[in-house]
Amino acid sequence: MAPFKDRIPTYLSRVEDALDARLPAADAAPEGLHAAMRYSVLGGGKRIRPLLCYATGETLGIGPAALDDPACAVELIHAFSLVHDDLPAMDDDELRRGRPTTHKAFDTATAILAGDALQTLAFNVLARGDGPGRLEMLRILSDATGSHGMTGGQAMDLAAEGREIPLAELETLHRRKTGCLIHSAVAMACCACPSLDADRRAHLDRFAANIGLAFQIRDDVLDVEGDTAVIGKTQGADAAHDKSTYPALMGLDAARRHADEIYESALAELEAFGAAAEPLRWMGEFIVRRDR
Amino acid sequence: MAPFKDRIPTYLSRVEDALDARLPAADAAPEGLHAAMRYSVLGGGKRIRPLLCYATGETLGIGPAALDDPACAVELIHAFSLVHDDLPAMDDDELRRGRPTTHKAFDTATAILAGDALQTLAFNVLARGDGPGRLEMLRILSDATGSHGMTGGQAMDLAAEGREIPLAELETLHRRKTGCLIHSAVAMACCACPSLDADRRAHLDRFAANIGLAFQIRDDVLDVEGDTAVIGKTQGADAAHDKSTYPALMGLDAARRHADEIYESALAELEAFGAAAEPLRWMGEFIVRRDR
Repeated sequence: MAPFKDRIPTYLSRVEDALDARLPAADAAPEGLHAAMRYSVLGGGKRIRPLLCYATGETLGIGPAALDDPACAVELIHAFSLVHDDLPAMDDDELRRGRPTTHKAFDTATAILAGDALQTLAFNVLARGDGPGRLEMLRILSDATGSHGMTGGQAMDLAAEGREIPLAELETLHRRKTGCLIHSAVAMACCACPSLDADRRAHLDRFAANIGLAFQIRDDVLDVEGDTAVIGKTQGADAAHDKSTYPALMGLDAARRHADEIYESALAELEAFGAAAEPLRWMGEFIVRRDR
Repeated sequence: MAPFKDRIPTYLSRVEDALDARLPAADAAPEGLHAAMRYSVLGGGKRIRPLLCYATGETLGIGPAALDDPACAVELIHAFSLVHDDLPAMDDDELRRGRPTTHKAFDTATAILAGDALQTLAFNVLARGDGPGRLEMLRILSDATGSHGMTGGQAMDLAAEGREIPLAELETLHRRKTGCLIHSAVAMACCACPSLDADRRAHLDRFAANIGLAFQIRDDVLDVEGDTAVIGKTQGADAAHDKSTYPALMGLDAARRHADEIYESALAELEAFGAAAEPLRWMGEFIVRRDR
């Protein structure tokens, strides 16, 4: 089989079409809200979470049609979180994916409501479909999104502004803020495979949790070393917000090495799958080595 | 059987306990977010939506234990919508249920995140439980909450500020903003009764849709005639925001009569259920005749 990388353009186009089909039509009322929802989701983003979903599917022999709903659902949650994180009362960012943030392109009230409706749509997409494991996918995604997951991580992030937090607390924060949702992309794909045994599932869970943490450390590193034009958002935003980051606590080189170590432990979890896990290995490397 | 009214205190205490048990513990991290979630949900509110859920259950012979999850889920969505509607960028209200709104008691960022996490929790509560009809409840509640339901209604409401809209548009707005969620309380209870036939279910659907509309017209009327101390929020807020309302478009007396007419058509839908529908009749009267 050709390497997973060769199928990335096909998957990116697939996920764009699937999101487009699941988002409300631009000409349906209320048009302003629907335009803001579509603006926040379509036409940008690395689609790392949907790609992880499809890559897990390939590893388990599950075709993409059974994964379009979870792939879209996790991306809709991600998009909702970006819209709300960028709000003036939160990170107050003006630039996202090289374009004005949703509250700049529309207004703050519309951005709040668009984020709200994107979250609802994520769960609606899972609840509307059929196929095995839907209730379990809904459990996984809502666990990953709520106050013990992503939203709780964002609250911890805001509470940590302006003070230096211990590394253990930063890891908890990162695992919640970013790791939980990354993990859910893999875990939801597992739900579509009822024949998956508990042992192999635990390997994939640990792979996903580690990749999620490595992703956020890489994000911290990119915020220090990246170029605004390449990363598509304001470089140095973390330092400007006086946020604790891995580079700030460990130093830049140590943070890079730490991400590599976590990446290596993630890879070790894939040994049980042999060559079939090539798509997940590629995704892991992409996540840890990416430059934006 | 004693009238439904006699069981209201028991149900109110039941729903308070059920919400308390499903909300994150106040001492679990992140504590600030969890405190804001609990503040926004507990210790206030008429609990009309949970009561409608239990009243539908009594009409169909379904006990309350099977309805605690949908009753809590619909109230969590309601609470999330109040927290976000009150935000400075939205209706900018300082008082809710006689207490400071969540963003006044905490801060705007925490209120945004608390609303987000309450929405997630609503779907999580449904996805975690078992019993018949869970996926269908998730479909109903997410349809009622999203851009074609409550959140879309709120967007239409903001877009209508400062201009007079036709009555037909106001009805659509009210049905979405308030009616959809009221309807979902009844519709989710129906999902817990697999033996319910399509004809009787259609009666309950129409009852619920009409009661939802009558509820919002009553809300408009109360905003004009009510006393701030009794209704627990700022009286005259609609006029201050230059919002179209039924009293503004029809006159106060005509709006009262219109709510009564819709209430009568709602009651007609309950004839098929005979005396068993006494709880829903009581809820209908409570909703249309309430003074706060």
